[in-house]
Amino acid sequence: MASHGTSLALRPVARAASRIPCHLSRQHLGLVRRYSIATASNNKKTSGQKERVVILGSGWAGYAFANTLDPAKYERIVVSPRSYFVFTPLLASTAVGTLEFRSVLEPVRRLPGVKFYQGWADDIDFARKTVRAEANTADDLASKTIVLPAGSGNYPKPPGSKGETFDVPYDKLVIACGSYSQTFGVDGVREHAHFLRDIGDSRRIRLRVLSLFEQCAHQDAELADTTTQDAGAHRAGHLTDEDRRSLLHFAVVGGGPTGIEFAAELHDLIHDDLARIYPELIQFVRITVYDIAPKVLPMFDQALSKYATDHFARQGIHVRTKTSLSGIRLAQGDLGREHGGLTLTLADSNSSEILAGLVVWSTGLMPNPLISRLATKSFPLSPPSSGSSSLALDGKSHLLLTDPHLRARLNRPSDPNATLDDVFVIGDCAIMESQSHLPKTAQVASQQAVYLAKQLNARAVGKKPFKFRNWGTLTYLGGWKAIHQSSADELKGWVAWIVWRGAYLTKSMSVRNKIMVPFYWLTSWLFGRDISRF
Amino acid sequence: MASHGTSLALRPVARAASRIPCHLSRQHLGLVRRYSIATASNNKKTSGQKERVVILGSGWAGYAFANTLDPAKYERIVVSPRSYFVFTPLLASTAVGTLEFRSVLEPVRRLPGVKFYQGWADDIDFARKTVRAEANTADDLASKTIVLPAGSGNYPKPPGSKGETFDVPYDKLVIACGSYSQTFGVDGVREHAHFLRDIGDSRRIRLRVLSLFEQCAHQDAELADTTTQDAGAHRAGHLTDEDRRSLLHFAVVGGGPTGIEFAAELHDLIHDDLARIYPELIQFVRITVYDIAPKVLPMFDQALSKYATDHFARQGIHVRTKTSLSGIRLAQGDLGREHGGLTLTLADSNSSEILAGLVVWSTGLMPNPLISRLATKSFPLSPPSSGSSSLALDGKSHLLLTDPHLRARLNRPSDPNATLDDVFVIGDCAIMESQSHLPKTAQVASQQAVYLAKQLNARAVGKKPFKFRNWGTLTYLGGWKAIHQSSADELKGWVAWIVWRGAYLTKSMSVRNKIMVPFYWLTSWLFGRDISRF
Repeated sequence: MASHGTSLALRPVARAASRIPCHLSRQHLGLVRRYSIATASNNKKTSGQKERVVILGSGWAGYAFANTLDPAKYERIVVSPRSYFVFTPLLASTAVGTLEFRSVLEPVRRLPGVKFYQGWADDIDFARKTVRAEANTADDLASKTIVLPAGSGNYPKPPGSKGETFDVPYDKLVIACGSYSQTFGVDGVREHAHFLRDIGDSRRIRLRVLSLFEQCAHQDAELADTTTQDAGAHRAGHLTDEDRRSLLHFAVVGGGPTGIEFAAELHDLIHDDLARIYPELIQFVRITVYDIAPKVLPMFDQALSKYATDHFARQGIHVRTKTSLSGIRLAQGDLGREHGGLTLTLADSNSSEILAGLVVWSTGLMPNPLISRLATKSFPLSPPSSGSSSLALDGKSHLLLTDPHLRARLNRPSDPNATLDDVFVIGDCAIMESQSHLPKTAQVASQQAVYLAKQLNARAVGKKPFKFRNWGTLTYLGGWKAIHQSSADELKGWVAWIVWRGAYLTKSMSVRNKIMVPFYWLTSWLFGRDISRF
Repeated sequence: MASHGTSLALRPVARAASRIPCHLSRQHLGLVRRYSIATASNNKKTSGQKERVVILGSGWAGYAFANTLDPAKYERIVVSPRSYFVFTPLLASTAVGTLEFRSVLEPVRRLPGVKFYQGWADDIDFARKTVRAEANTADDLASKTIVLPAGSGNYPKPPGSKGETFDVPYDKLVIACGSYSQTFGVDGVREHAHFLRDIGDSRRIRLRVLSLFEQCAHQDAELADTTTQDAGAHRAGHLTDEDRRSLLHFAVVGGGPTGIEFAAELHDLIHDDLARIYPELIQFVRITVYDIAPKVLPMFDQALSKYATDHFARQGIHVRTKTSLSGIRLAQGDLGREHGGLTLTLADSNSSEILAGLVVWSTGLMPNPLISRLATKSFPLSPPSSGSSSLALDGKSHLLLTDPHLRARLNRPSDPNATLDDVFVIGDCAIMESQSHLPKTAQVASQQAVYLAKQLNARAVGKKPFKFRNWGTLTYLGGWKAIHQSSADELKGWVAWIVWRGAYLTKSMSVRNKIMVPFYWLTSWLFGRDISRF
């Protein structure tokens, strides 16, 4: 079908709608394309007759796109550092043991017919229509958000690892590689705080919470009694009640849905389960949510947001708004060295300090470094008189700019409507012109993915622009309560809880997990959450 | 009840049966006790009226004992480096993803009323009736069998960690701390092979198997085509088919039930699940079981053992008997450095070498170093004229010797029947005189635990010696087949498979896991095993 043996011609705006016989797929798609690129050589092969669509990323955007694109019409190849899609709204539930980790994962390799390469997209050669990737064959995938050395600007690959590099040629490219966690340059966040974006984060948080209780429980009064004879030797690292109060302080930075839901789930874990196992420790437990804004959950209206705050207050979860952090470091002495206690410095006039055992950081997103690199990378257009260009960035967000059809914009001030043939950007790394107000949510990402796949399936890219349909926002508040808001309705309390669980269930992708998730909800409710640490 | 304010009197054999009023519990138990120890001082307290029973270990012996001992009569304290009991017969199933890890764990803290301290018992002061332990508060517990530096003879604590030490006083002590994996001093086993004894082992094996398939799948012919232009740069680490054959060779050392069941489960995983996802790789897969003996599964009679070997042969699992290894090291070049490939040296006249991607090592047990240390530790008997003594070791097995009532023997050549008051040894670290033929199995350990707990509950220690009741042996062979042998019957094929699953289910400890395990069996059967790597 598509012949790659021909050097593609430059087609400036005036000629864009014409049909170029040497690139048949374009005719089929019937697109108004602005620019192609000068291909260096014929260095790839399309297997069989189908166009090869390479998808970078396996998150909400990439996974939903791969799942929706018609395998009868396209060859689908996913390149992603992780081999699974994470159902992020339930991540907080796995961090506290309500759900098993695997029940919120969907392995990419389970998508029938999808080819998968596990690796980081390092670079894209738009001229050769090739993605260069570095294989990720690490056995134990840590979260990719936390191992990034502060300020390195590189990809968060495990330190010291250098996988094999390989090239993946594409006919069409879908960039869906998401964003990184925003730290606002606060010292110590990457070293000492936990994000909550991947299953590795969730697992580490779960271990840390249980470990903190275990450490605080370890010496009870009876044991301490036995060491009075040589107290010096045996009471090294002995915890005072004040230490326990510090270690069992759980700090959540960021009052968006992720932070609020984690605080709520953690409260449930502690009060439903750990209270039975460590009754003597409950007096020391505190959960605090910090947010720089004057209120949490900004996407909810005032009444629902107040409902949430009041509910938290009744549960004993503290919400400190208009508060931000300037640094996180290990606490002094044994508390930090032996127990991993942390000192949080607040960005107030006194630089006041607070001790905590765990910090969960969820303050928003920053651009993936691949995006910034792509934007500085220029590639030749053809004929040479057109010069070269690069992908356009949105000035404010520093994300890749797309047209309303999710095609990547070119950086050509002389021609602001220029897009790059066959390159699409969806999800958190894209900003759509005229719709830049859309939030960076799973809902937007998955709707963009489904929209784009359907347009491609219908060979109708460029006909109907993307339109976001707001399904509303749901946030779990703990104690079987949630709030829900959409343009049509507004729910809270029990009803919202049922809607919440129902909505999540329906959205769970595979039949397997549609069975698994309610099963875990049932068993956690019957037997309590699992508390084994391993 | 028991008064610890009094220095306990020496009671040599002649006086042993007499009642010593200062130690009331002895009267209740009606024991024939040989020796007490000279207590240094009154340095512990018994909370309330109940005797405090300290249990070292949370394996088959320790967990079953803690679960059976009557909480109305005794205070139960478990000291163990891991916070859970592992249902070991199903460990191989978790290593291949048929079952979820947590479904084979029972958290010790879920035992109502049991106090738990997570740590390694470092030493026992028999004079002060106190266990000294080092806290284990590591977040991510690796298997304790593999991090032990070769030949160190120390406890396998995570390198560099030094937890807080604490003392736990006891009235009665039950040593149930198990054994270590035997390596026969073969070079590289601890560094490169995987044991299969704890959930950490199982998790690492699962990641490794899936990672090997991922690595071998990574470059298919299409991708390789694209790098012909600068092959040098891009094909570093490129795998040949020969490399794939090496990496997808799974070596199991030891043909006992653990090794055989792992080989069988691995075969099921590969042929039921991975064959669908990586069809092109199945041609490279080999599984080999090595055993030094002339036949595998020595506990089965000739016919059943042959049935197993024939079944394996039909499945394509190789069994190499009369073969042992002399070393394991990383393979040369990229195969070892980048892909973790291993070179196995056989202990034959040619020192022939074999490549493999994974080695699972299961060749039996060796004594826990605590046991050896206790045996060299002498403590004073009282009055001083009796001198001092130490715990007796069995000369052949180097395990702690007990009498038929599971009481620890003292090392007193002049008095071979001497036992130490209030110290019991059960499970893999015990060898019972006159019953030294008993195998080191979960069955023996749990029967000893239940026997001892019931004797203590009835205050009848010393009355009726332990008697092992053989329930028969079951081994899963893959493909839904198993073999079962006991004195009464002999089963194989489908019937054995049903007995096997039924038996395991009934033995699963908690109601939770009685529900979880069949649920996972069902979902794995319906949807395949989970293959996400994290």
